[in-house]
This record gives sequence, structure tokens and C-alpha cells, in this order.
Amino acid sequence: DRKLKVFSLSSNPELAKEVAEHIGVPLGKSSVTSFSDGEIQINIEESIRGCDVYIIQSTSAPVNQHLMELLIMIDALKRASAATINVVIPYYGYARQDRKARAREPITAKLVADIIQEAGADRVITLDLHAPQIQGFFNIPVDQLVGVPILGDYWSEKNLEDVVIVSPDHGGVSRARQLAERLKAPIAIIDKRRPRPNVAEVMNIVGKVDGKTAILIDDMIDTAGTISLAANALIKNGAKEVYACCTHPVLSGPAIERINDSAIKELVVTNSIVLPKEKQIDKVVTLSVAPLISEAIIRVHEELSVSVLFD
Amino acid sequence: DRKLKVFSLSSNPELAKEVAEHIGVPLGKSSVTSFSDGEIQINIEESIRGCDVYIIQSTSAPVNQHLMELLIMIDALKRASAATINVVIPYYGYARQDRKARAREPITAKLVADIIQEAGADRVITLDLHAPQIQGFFNIPVDQLVGVPILGDYWSEKNLEDVVIVSPDHGGVSRARQLAERLKAPIAIIDKRRPRPNVAEVMNIVGKVDGKTAILIDDMIDTAGTISLAANALIKNGAKEVYACCTHPVLSGPAIERINDSAIKELVVTNSIVLPKEKQIDKVVTLSVAPLISEAIIRVHEELSVSVLFD
Ligand SMILES: Nc1ncnc2c1ncn2[C@@H]1O[C@H](COP(=O)(O)O)[C@@H](O)[C@H]1O
Ligand SMILES: Nc1ncnc2c1ncn2[C@@H]1O[C@H](COP(=O)(O)O)[C@@H](O)[C@H]1O
Repeated sequence: DRKLKVFSLSSNPELAKEVAEHIGVPLGKSSVTSFSDGEIQINIEESIRGCDVYIIQSTSAPVNQHLMELLIMIDALKRASAATINVVIPYYGYARQDRKARAREPITAKLVADIIQEAGADRVITLDLHAPQIQGFFNIPVDQLVGVPILGDYWSEKNLEDVVIVSPDHGGVSRARQLAERLKAPIAIIDKRRPRPNVAEVMNIVGKVDGKTAILIDDMIDTAGTISLAANALIKNGAKEVYACCTHPVLSGPAIERINDSAIKELVVTNSIVLPKEKQIDKVVTLSVAPLISEAIIRVHEELSVSVLFD
Repeated sequence: DRKLKVFSLSSNPELAKEVAEHIGVPLGKSSVTSFSDGEIQINIEESIRGCDVYIIQSTSAPVNQHLMELLIMIDALKRASAATINVVIPYYGYARQDRKARAREPITAKLVADIIQEAGADRVITLDLHAPQIQGFFNIPVDQLVGVPILGDYWSEKNLEDVVIVSPDHGGVSRARQLAERLKAPIAIIDKRRPRPNVAEVMNIVGKVDGKTAILIDDMIDTAGTISLAANALIKNGAKEVYACCTHPVLSGPAIERINDSAIKELVVTNSIVLPKEKQIDKVVTLSVAPLISEAIIRVHEELSVSVLFD
């Protein structure tokens, strides 16, 4: 059996610690610092020769810093003869630049995939990609984990009555359906339409929400514009209470203010992105993806060990 | 003849403007902004289909931001059918991580070369690489420009008497020799030695400096520790005056304070790295590399056009 090692970079140190504990290995010793001019310096302080290494790093803000840390760490591990380099990216940044919507746009999500591979990664484990097509941007195995079961378990235990699961837009309907199936609840969809150009959007609701407890679900919440408007539209349409959940709490710019001011009673997120103190408001509940990631690592490691036997 | 276009990113907008003027083309229309969560958004606002495009961007601080801008721009140009993508990197960041000095160190200068190529660059034009070996990290043509003639012309015009060119360490002797040849001056070398462990370094000077005007030269000055100690040692050894010059004014951390407090009378640098206002102190003179870069671009463009004829 090859040795499994888990290393953290700077995006999610607590999650990495939890994952290592769950797996039952000590967290790998390494440090990320900056030289005086801001260049990243990474030190790996234990041998990793011949080991299966798992690096845990979200490319959350500051995204360029976190991405470069990841690339430099992969480079260092490769040159230090790791057997396999497995990158665990709970939140995959730049995922919304996944297609050319206009002329001369970059496809940064593909660029990121290319450079992670070029650096020397052998496998990617990630969680709720903004678009599942991003898996195809890689030519190495990508395991995509799903956050719905964790969110679903939370809502099950909360035991809300007469629930309807709501997708804030058309893109998220299948995610809403997955959660609805787990909770044996119906779904509704917010159907934003601009009646004429330069006229405010109208929020139509497809499905019954009147008198019900609505749970909004999205993969990520960034500036929280969509979700807070959706929550207010649900109340206006007779919903009794509105909850919301997402896997990735990007929560940039005016997000926290908007959530505080909105009809959302509670926002449930995961720790794929670490929330700084000032964003840990009372309304926000954070669930850990450490068990999910740990189990994925154990599963992958068993497969890797088997493939060593049969190679 | 294929059309030549010059684009700026955010590191050196003034230099890019100067280069475009010197070449006689309008600067390409594009913008670099950030989304609310800090992800980079690049817009190219004119067609570049079939053009030879030159992007001007130093990977100076904030290095990770500047590097990602460059990669994303290359990606966008590639997808918009540029004929060739030529990246002009006046200052190549991460150049000091160019070898494994200790176990498990990354070679980030090579990683950077790999990802610039992977993004889709066809050619690199750069200036005074910290180590010339970095050219070999690329599998595409690399033109390395040299700053010594620009610095040399400045000192020639200044007409200082009885000059000695001084290298602040062993690594820089050949650069000092190049400047010395241009100025028909002798050279000297600072020979730092630590007599025993945990004892302060002693600055020996190899060569005659007594009664002379010393000009220190290095490729880059970062925290200015070496150069300011060297200047003081020169004065202690009888030098009349001490000047200093370098191509790349990294000037991070305590650099400005150290230079102000040192015996250095004037520090001459180039605009390969833009100095923010607070670093533009009286002692610092900045020379433009715009003519040098413009001529390189014109030369390369003529070659590229010729190769089109013969392909
Ligand atoms: N970091 C970002 N923040 C906000 N919008 C973005 C970001 N990255 C890409 N976009 C835009 O989001 C849109 C795609 O989002 P979506 O339709 O949710 O996949 C595109 O128009 C992108 O230009
Ligand atoms: N950005 C940086 N700032 C300061 N030192 C660095 C930086 N990058 C690399 N180094 C170190 O500088 C040394 C190489 O510098 P040099 O001998 O001048 O090529 C190595 O020990 C590196 O670890």
C-alpha cells in the first residue's frame, strides 16, 4: 500500500485539518509564505517521495493567489517524486467563464484546467462545478462530489412543514429537483422576465408557493442579488417563510447586506469557501464537507492502490 | 503584410502607450476589470483576427494578478483567431525560483514558462532575465533584450570622472564588465564573506575604488539590502561618490528607506516595473525601455511577415 498524505494550502486550513483527522493521517507539514515582493514561497517540510498526495485548496478569493499556490505546490510535489498528485478543489473559481458568450471572450475555466494539468496534477476531486461540462476541460480523471445530500440532511433534520423547493432561475432546476426528491417536496421555479427592454424584470413564479415554506437552492451565491429578490418575490406570492441554501458561499460585494435585508430567514452553506469573521452573520449556517471529501479520498486511494497491484 | 497590434494589460500602461506611439500604431482597445468576487474580466474591444498581436505585461507585483491577466489575455486572443500571440514581459517575475536549491522546492520560473506556453503564446520578448537559462524553459522563441546599453548611455552623458563599475556580488560580474567596456572603465567586485558561522559578513572589495567614482550595477534591486551595504563599503574603502543602477526596480519592503539612508547618490532604473508615487524619490532616475522594446517588436514583426511569405 502506498502512503496517503494530505496537505493544506492557504484557502481552507480548517477543512484540511478535519479531512486529515477523518482519514486518520497527520496533516502534511508545509508552509505558504510570501517573499518581500509578494512572490509565493512554498515549503514542503516532510518527504513525500512515492506517496499519493492530496492537496486541499479552493480557488476562492483571492483567486489568483490561491490558484498560483496550487500550481506551485503541484510543481514542488512533482519534482519531489510524489507517486500521484491529487488536487481537491472544493470551490472551482473562474467557473462562470466557461464559454464564449461574446466575441473575443476568454474561456478562463478551461485555461485553469489546462494549467493545473500542465503543472502536473494527476486527478481532480471537486464539488458542485458551476457547469458539469468543466469536467470535460480536463484530460485527467475528475471526481465531482455533490452537495445536495449534505444540504438535504440538514433540512430533513430541521423538519420544516409543507416545504417547496425553489430554483431561483431556469439553470438550477435539476439541482432543485434533486433536493426535492430527498425531501419528498414539490418544486417551484422563479421565472425572471424583462417584459420590454429598459423595463424592470418581473418575477413570475412557476409552481405553488402560497402558504408554504420555501427553500431556495443554488450552487453558489455571489452578490446575492438574485437570491434576495427571489426571496422577496416568494413572500409577495404568499410563501410563509423563506430559507435558502447553496454549496458555495462566494458572498462578495453587497451580499451580506442584501441577505440581512432580505426575507431569507436562514442561509445554509458549506465550508467549500471559508467565510471571514465579518461574513459569519447569524442568518448563515455552515455545514462541513469534510466527511464527503474524506470519503472520496479514501475511495480514490483504494482504487489507486488496487491499480498499483494490477499495473 | 499582416497587421501588427499592441495591447496593454495593467502592469505598464504608460510603457505600452509609448511603445505603440514609437511603432506608429494606435494602442489596442481593451480593458481589464475585476468581477465583484475578484475574478479578472478582460474585454478586447476590437477585432484581432489574423493580426500579429503584442501584449505588454510585466509579471511584477501583484505578480499573481499580473500573470493571470496575461494568461487570460492570451487565451482570449487565441480563441479570437490572432495570427500570432507575442508576449512582451519587460520584468519576468518568479525568476529567482529557477532551480531546486533545497529538497522539495518548486521551480516556479519554469512553471510560469510552461503555463504561458500552455495558454497559447507563440513568442516571448523579455529584458534582462535574472538567469539566462530561463530562455531554455520555453519551447517557443525567446528574445532577450539587454538593459546595459540604455544604462550605459545615461552614464556616458553624465560624464563622470574616474569611474569604476562595481558588481555587488560574484553573480553580476559579467554584467558589470559589459557596462565597463561601454564606459571604458575598470571593474571591481564586492566579495561578501562570512569568516565564521554566526559572525557578521565582511565586505571585501576586489579591485581599486579608492578616490574613484563607483557605479554599482545589478539586474534587479529588491529589498536593497545588498546594494546599500555595498555602497557604504565602497565609501569606507575610499570611493569618492557612489551611484547605482539596475534594470528592474523591484524595490519591495524596506528598499526605499534603505536607499535613502545609504551612501548612494543616485539610483538609475528602467520602467520595466512601474514605481508607485511613493517610491519615486529624488534619488531615483527612471529611463524608458520603450525604444528598445519597440525596435524589438518591429524587428520580430518584419521576420514574421517574411516567414509568412516563405511558409
Ligand atoms: N466572477 C464573476 N462574477 C460575476 N459574473 C461573472 C463572473 N465570471 C463570469 N461571469 C459572467 O457570468 C455569466 C455566466 O454566468 P452563468 O450564466 O451563471 O453561467 C457570463 O456572462 C460571465 O461573463
Ligand atoms: N521573490 C523572492 N524574493 C527573495 N528571494 C527569493 C525570491 N524568489 C526566490 N528567492 C530566493 O532567492 C535565491 C535565489 O536568488 P539568486 O541567487 O539571486 O538567483 C533562492 O534562495 C530563492 O529561494
